[in-house]
Amino acid sequence: MKVKITGVGLYLPPKIESSNEIALKIGKSAKWIINKCGVKERRVSHIDVDEMGAIAGKEALANNGIPDLIINASGVPKQTIPDTSTFYQKALGFEGIPSFSIHCTCLSFIAAFHTASSLITSGSYKKILIISSDRGTKGRNFKEPESASLLGDGAAAIVLEPSKNKENSKLIYYNMKTWPSGAKLTEVRGGGTNKHPQDPKTKLEDNLFTMDGPGIYKIARKKVYKLMIKTLKVTGLNKNDIHWIIPHQASGKAVNAYISIGGFPKEKVCSSIEKFGNCVAASLPMTLVMNIKNNNIKRGQNILLIGTGAGLSAACAVINY
Amino acid sequence: MKVKITGVGLYLPPKIESSNEIALKIGKSAKWIINKCGVKERRVSHIDVDEMGAIAGKEALANNGIPDLIINASGVPKQTIPDTSTFYQKALGFEGIPSFSIHCTCLSFIAAFHTASSLITSGSYKKILIISSDRGTKGRNFKEPESASLLGDGAAAIVLEPSKNKENSKLIYYNMKTWPSGAKLTEVRGGGTNKHPQDPKTKLEDNLFTMDGPGIYKIARKKVYKLMIKTLKVTGLNKNDIHWIIPHQASGKAVNAYISIGGFPKEKVCSSIEKFGNCVAASLPMTLVMNIKNNNIKRGQNILLIGTGAGLSAACAVINY
Repeated sequence: MKVKITGVGLYLPPKIESSNEIALKIGKSAKWIINKCGVKERRVSHIDVDEMGAIAGKEALANNGIPDLIINASGVPKQTIPDTSTFYQKALGFEGIPSFSIHCTCLSFIAAFHTASSLITSGSYKKILIISSDRGTKGRNFKEPESASLLGDGAAAIVLEPSKNKENSKLIYYNMKTWPSGAKLTEVRGGGTNKHPQDPKTKLEDNLFTMDGPGIYKIARKKVYKLMIKTLKVTGLNKNDIHWIIPHQASGKAVNAYISIGGFPKEKVCSSIEKFGNCVAASLPMTLVMNIKNNNIKRGQNILLIGTGAGLSAACAVINY
Repeated sequence: MKVKITGVGLYLPPKIESSNEIALKIGKSAKWIINKCGVKERRVSHIDVDEMGAIAGKEALANNGIPDLIINASGVPKQTIPDTSTFYQKALGFEGIPSFSIHCTCLSFIAAFHTASSLITSGSYKKILIISSDRGTKGRNFKEPESASLLGDGAAAIVLEPSKNKENSKLIYYNMKTWPSGAKLTEVRGGGTNKHPQDPKTKLEDNLFTMDGPGIYKIARKKVYKLMIKTLKVTGLNKNDIHWIIPHQASGKAVNAYISIGGFPKEKVCSSIEKFGNCVAASLPMTLVMNIKNNNIKRGQNILLIGTGAGLSAACAVINY
């Protein structure tokens, strides 16, 4: 699909929390955290997801006009109703722009990128602002050391437009799969009708992140490998044709698997996990936007966006930037 | 866009709650409820949204194969993570089908219908199952008589496929707008990072529905009227060309406005509010599916799907069934 990223934006909360600081809260050492999760430090936001996302969105739009659609592609909303896209629009100072949310946890950005590409291809919209903003530190369970030390806060945004006839920019390939047999591996059980706050059986921790890191890794490693091999086969691309791999920053181990198991050279696999942790749905677009902003990613290059999310789901997209 | 509804399904919870029963809980009479909201009775589900939605989804699929995408288009999720589409898939007994949620509260179904049509048009999918399932009675605030007596539970599903060359079935027109100046008019403030259960300032009622019915009606009436007029103008259709109006069942007054202000004959404006209340995002597809199942809606007829949602948003779609 002939689409082009015409603007990018990023929000990194200024407050840095080191692994030494969080070590005290979870009863583990900083060394344990770094070995287990690959996270040396993470950002902790004192503004909410809508303001974080709007800062990234404003930068992505720059002086590039007004979007005709705003998609929120985050893991956790600001609140149940209205959906977060409304609050981005409010913080951006717009009125009357259609907006909605796409949600499939850590894969929300990849799914939104594909959906936005289809909406552009069908002629429905011409300038779509996609914002991913997550504040995972709000839902940390300090009794669960691994997930608590993984999570960080951040936001990223892109503007997607049709690419012009002579431009090569496009979405080359997209694939997603969900295996609900893995639904229990990553959860926030509250926040909906399941463990409603009015239900006397609902506990505080039902509203916190819980994940079985080793359980996910064990299943995801094979699923993602298969997806990657299929992607290369269907697109006719070989590993050398892929200039950059932007994985969801699930954990240090998960990112490194694209090198050790995936067989991609280390310098092509973009990582932000050490400095920013796992920022839920924002992790992948944050890493993408950082590498566009620092000029690593250049026009004409092929980028593989890939990762797993709660569900358990796996998705990937190959784009020519 | 050349798409066709090839299957429909419905779930109506068996338990009926009369307005006499709820009157006791809110300190108003049944007459007050019926006059104010237009709701004589509503259903109260004892199974959760995923099971409700899966029953509707199974009926929609019938013996019609396996979908290649499942979209959840509801107002309130089962839980924060994973998104509800995963749980539908689990309850339906599938594995490996891509799935995600589209959320813009009461307009989720219309937005999902348009998005699914684009995904079919772009060649991404060929058989999309859209499920809307809401259990608004879980979040009723009995201190707020109007919204508490409006809400009901229910689920509906459709299967969307490309229409064949000779078939007329299509999405003729779609339009949506969001005005965040109206964000405070309908809210569930909890369930996300805003009023997190870990925050000592969060109150139980932050997790309950709150709406300013008269405030919404005042703004929405004009916005929806304008949208309707524009829709007729852009499509070149006149009111006689529209065979059925399927409004979001916001309230009795809101549904009747399509007759009194919209100028459509009463027999064309489909209502389910009296017997089922406002079922959030499920209201509109429930009303659509009921009128397909009872053979009111026939192939070749034009249907206007229209309504408002928290945001404040308004949307409409004209389809040739």
